[in-house]
Amino acid sequence: MAGQTKKAMDTTVNGVDVDRLKSTVQAMEAVPELAKFTFRVTNRWMKGGLNRTTIGSFRGAGAENHRDAFVIDNAEPSLVVGEDEAPNPVEYLLHALVGCLTTTFVYHAAMQGVRLRAVESQVEGRLDMRSFLGVREDLHGGFEAVHVRFRVKADCSEDELALLMDVARRRSPLANFVLRAVPTSVVCEAM
Amino acid sequence: MAGQTKKAMDTTVNGVDVDRLKSTVQAMEAVPELAKFTFRVTNRWMKGGLNRTTIGSFRGAGAENHRDAFVIDNAEPSLVVGEDEAPNPVEYLLHALVGCLTTTFVYHAAMQGVRLRAVESQVEGRLDMRSFLGVREDLHGGFEAVHVRFRVKADCSEDELALLMDVARRRSPLANFVLRAVPTSVVCEAM
Repeated sequence: MAGQTKKAMDTTVNGVDVDRLKSTVQAMEAVPELAKFTFRVTNRWMKGGLNRTTIGSFRGAGAENHRDAFVIDNAEPSLVVGEDEAPNPVEYLLHALVGCLTTTFVYHAAMQGVRLRAVESQVEGRLDMRSFLGVREDLHGGFEAVHVRFRVKADCSEDELALLMDVARRRSPLANFVLRAVPTSVVCEAM
Repeated sequence: MAGQTKKAMDTTVNGVDVDRLKSTVQAMEAVPELAKFTFRVTNRWMKGGLNRTTIGSFRGAGAENHRDAFVIDNAEPSLVVGEDEAPNPVEYLLHALVGCLTTTFVYHAAMQGVRLRAVESQVEGRLDMRSFLGVREDLHGGFEAVHVRFRVKADCSEDELALLMDVARRRSPLANFVLRAVPTSVVCEAM
């Protein structure tokens, strides 16, 4: 038992089990199919701007991975004719974006042996509600621009820090999602 | 009081106060500046793949709008070397996407007087984890594809339903976010 504890302490950097992470990487190098993940959610409208998402199992590493479901709500603030019971979808997107950049940054720092003391970020996104509400046909409804600002305390030089953040920006699924258009299908059928 | 209740019932469709929504639209038509919204979140890394977001005030309708903060976590499942304390960022994005499409659909249905009985959706996104983990330089880390499927029970024809879903896809901020690349800056400074 003492030996196991010592081993766990030795291979954990930034709370990431680096041995296990590197084993995962090696497995995916050997069998690319293990790297194909499918995440999915279901959603049910409640009323007005309130709807409820259930997040359960996902496919990854060649198998279906079951876990207890998470249930989270989208809502709209009063100014957008809602009751503000939960964050709105645009805020969830910003949450996902900074969270994904952070995790990608932390994991790659761990694999490179860089110890982190603090990672804080703020992000803001501007949008023009006239598209969402149908006032203007010529505006698209998405963000006009997104600005992310990180502050990091780490045992490395500022140059190494900049390189690590560049890795995060290139590797983060959410950052890539923001930077690129994704082929998306939306199908609707009557019940 | 009885009069107020009657009025509220008359102008509410699908839980949306249509009178208030149309007043909002008219105000934005008259003063476009009112339509400029800025949403923002802050995030703090906890450990490993766990980080915590705080969502507070936002700017909209020409003013700062204060409200009680929401606090939500990102985490990673065990297969991605996490402890599964919360959904991961990719799942939050899917949650935001279907929620935004749903709300846009519901609001425009309300403005057109279409009464909805049920709106359910499922979405899945596929990605290759080899980019996120640095195994492959030539893959981007975002979704390869996203598929959204809606089932709707509404007091309208199937053609009207298809037109309404098309409005949702064109008007939803998140759908536009998925379909387009957004100018994004990521700045990082050492503490």
